[in-house]
Amino acid sequence: MSTLAVAMCLPAIFDVAVGNPDWQVFALSAALTMFIGVMLVLMTRGNVRNISIRQAFVLTTVVWVVIPCFAALPLAFADLQLSYTDAFFEAMSGLTTTGSTVMLGLDFTPPGILLWRALLQWLGGIGIIAMAIAILPLLQVGGMQLFRMESSDTSDKVMPRTVQIVTYISVPYLALTFLCAVLYWFGGMSGFDAITHAMTTIATCGFSTHDASLGYFDSAAIEVTATVFMVIGGMPFVLYLQALRGAPAGLIRDSQVRWFLAIVVVSVLCMWAYRVFGAEGADLGTFRAAAFNVVSVITGTGYATEDFSAWGPFAVSAMFFLMFVGGCAGSTTCGIKIFRFQVLYATAKNQMHRLLQPHGVFIPYYNRKPIPESVSESVMSFFFLYVLSFALIAVCLGLMGLDLLTAASGAATAISNVGPGLGPQIGPSGTFATLPDAAKWLLAFGMLLGRLELFTVLVLLVPAFWRK
Amino acid sequence: MSTLAVAMCLPAIFDVAVGNPDWQVFALSAALTMFIGVMLVLMTRGNVRNISIRQAFVLTTVVWVVIPCFAALPLAFADLQLSYTDAFFEAMSGLTTTGSTVMLGLDFTPPGILLWRALLQWLGGIGIIAMAIAILPLLQVGGMQLFRMESSDTSDKVMPRTVQIVTYISVPYLALTFLCAVLYWFGGMSGFDAITHAMTTIATCGFSTHDASLGYFDSAAIEVTATVFMVIGGMPFVLYLQALRGAPAGLIRDSQVRWFLAIVVVSVLCMWAYRVFGAEGADLGTFRAAAFNVVSVITGTGYATEDFSAWGPFAVSAMFFLMFVGGCAGSTTCGIKIFRFQVLYATAKNQMHRLLQPHGVFIPYYNRKPIPESVSESVMSFFFLYVLSFALIAVCLGLMGLDLLTAASGAATAISNVGPGLGPQIGPSGTFATLPDAAKWLLAFGMLLGRLELFTVLVLLVPAFWRK
Repeated sequence: MSTLAVAMCLPAIFDVAVGNPDWQVFALSAALTMFIGVMLVLMTRGNVRNISIRQAFVLTTVVWVVIPCFAALPLAFADLQLSYTDAFFEAMSGLTTTGSTVMLGLDFTPPGILLWRALLQWLGGIGIIAMAIAILPLLQVGGMQLFRMESSDTSDKVMPRTVQIVTYISVPYLALTFLCAVLYWFGGMSGFDAITHAMTTIATCGFSTHDASLGYFDSAAIEVTATVFMVIGGMPFVLYLQALRGAPAGLIRDSQVRWFLAIVVVSVLCMWAYRVFGAEGADLGTFRAAAFNVVSVITGTGYATEDFSAWGPFAVSAMFFLMFVGGCAGSTTCGIKIFRFQVLYATAKNQMHRLLQPHGVFIPYYNRKPIPESVSESVMSFFFLYVLSFALIAVCLGLMGLDLLTAASGAATAISNVGPGLGPQIGPSGTFATLPDAAKWLLAFGMLLGRLELFTVLVLLVPAFWRK
Repeated sequence: MSTLAVAMCLPAIFDVAVGNPDWQVFALSAALTMFIGVMLVLMTRGNVRNISIRQAFVLTTVVWVVIPCFAALPLAFADLQLSYTDAFFEAMSGLTTTGSTVMLGLDFTPPGILLWRALLQWLGGIGIIAMAIAILPLLQVGGMQLFRMESSDTSDKVMPRTVQIVTYISVPYLALTFLCAVLYWFGGMSGFDAITHAMTTIATCGFSTHDASLGYFDSAAIEVTATVFMVIGGMPFVLYLQALRGAPAGLIRDSQVRWFLAIVVVSVLCMWAYRVFGAEGADLGTFRAAAFNVVSVITGTGYATEDFSAWGPFAVSAMFFLMFVGGCAGSTTCGIKIFRFQVLYATAKNQMHRLLQPHGVFIPYYNRKPIPESVSESVMSFFFLYVLSFALIAVCLGLMGLDLLTAASGAATAISNVGPGLGPQIGPSGTFATLPDAAKWLLAFGMLLGRLELFTVLVLLVPAFWRK
């Protein structure tokens, strides 16, 4: 929270610089957040020595609920006509790198607010990477134990290790953000737009400073830059760290990266072929639009250049299911994630072979290593709970009066942290502002659920968790 | 096929009795089918001694492809303006107990054809029960090994056992059909309607003799009868056999039956509550309509009394996801089936406990017995392949020009063997006739896939299957 308070000073300083009265809003929010943050530090000082697994679960979930509560303050205090529900939704959407927005008229929104939204996503992005590397593998959540770095890791080392990892990872994260901003700037963006968009591109989030999203710039260079950096944001950041340390081969050898790139290429080509056969001509513009929008949905970024629902029924169906895919573990993306599909595929293939030879012994492989039974079971349970949570959220949204397309795509976009849904209301050209408040809270919960890989939240609902 | 030919004689005789020229169509089809059937018997006589697992897979799939090819003949030959694609779709829909139809104007269709459609579903129903008891557990398909009767069963006993089981099961199957027909008759149906509807109720299929389905009769007694017998059709027929043999306690003790009834009751009450709060009044008529339509969707019957999409967005969302549920294993229903949800739930719960105590030993239970690791893995792979197949079929339907609602509900209704989909085109008040031919073949394939519990078909696509 202290970090968050410090982060709030950035838009405050920026607002002072451009002479915008919003700096008071940020200063007030920062003071409040810093006060409570420092109080908490003083209260617990010296007590954090080692934490149990249960405490780690509670702490992770509580952090991801409390931080958005405070991150929402500047949005609620500023003169934006946002209720606290709206502000919380926007903050949760930012920090979980979802990118669904309730704000319209971004082009006329004060720059401090726009910077704050971008900062939220950028900080959320690095927080997620750190969590995926340091915390989730230890908690053995949904097969993430595949990515344990040392088998001797125990939960009492979580806190110092997390800080250490954030420090390491921030090097490639900062470098890539800077590179992306420079390229955007060369592509014709203003300095402010370049920095804010670079922040939300590398964190695959999707907040923009314009209502028309990246379509506003209508520039091939910017779209290509965005496409490339969204793909980069969808790959494991640990591999970039390794590459910086002189071992770039990992990037090519990693089977998760290969599958991810293969899925991206195949999806883009299919979408392009569909548009070409739909008599739109095989020009580069169609290809660029197909690549940009498909990558935006797969990585859960949620930028848009045009409303792809106008491309035809196949585009809508395909985009709907692509929402669930996500990127690699250890990236800023959400969704089911590539490695889980690999584990599911390997297990299902294995199953087929076992059907043919009931007494044979078959072992599924991931990244040239056998998959432990516990991992494949964990991944399969994750998949079941993912589909179940999606269905329950969609049905509840239906109960709140949303039609099936809006409810289903809203549930999918929340739990997979994509951003816009489908249909006229919450599609790429709509906003979430018109939804009832209850739906906004439910969607915010869905974002949290997806971001924390389900188990981290759901385990708190198990009665055994609270027994001694 | 010889059985099928004999079955074709029934509508032929009936048509002769009522003086309808269609009897020639049936006689011709029966002769053709019988000719090829007898040829096959003569060709393979004495050779069927024991069959390997691979042969069992091929045989099961081939039977379920060839039989609809011939069962479609009367529909294609008769004067119904049906293409062979339409006729095959209708026959596959009938034999797999799906109940999707391409025929309009049922009220003016010759009775022989109507009887034939009901017969197809009735024969399909008993075939499915026999398959679920005798063949699938041996093939260990999708967790069906849970229902192996004797652990000493081997595949070379498949053929005689199947015949034996059909004989046993036909006793409760015939008795229930008769009882249902009598109740329908008391409810005010004509003798012909009572018999055909009883056949399609107990087999949870949903073909009717009227375009308005059961709504045509507008009778509380008939709807209640249908609701009760659809539920009966969704329970394991082995338990009825046991009850007839003097052990009815199994019906109450079986955890699958309990879950099934609980899910039905909860879904019906939710739907009713939604309609009551939707200011439609808490009268018995609303309850009856809710119960009837929810049960019709869960069991995959597909009868309709009214278009539930008019009930509001919650009804549409809920019905969409209920399509996947299905009934018990060993019944005539399709879908994911209750026991798989139980296994998935038990495994996921187990997983949560393991997260809290990484070194603890936890064992999931089904029906008071521990679930073998192979079963839970098999069920989870089934679930993954089910969702994947659904998504692929829906995307392909999108490619054929169907909008997302039609494509997604069409894929769901095919793979779960429900019957009608959602939306104006294929919903309860539409038909599948307007779909392009390619979509009909794909949906027929989806029905086959769902009916044979995925693995039986998908295993044929594994290259290792065809290697020596």
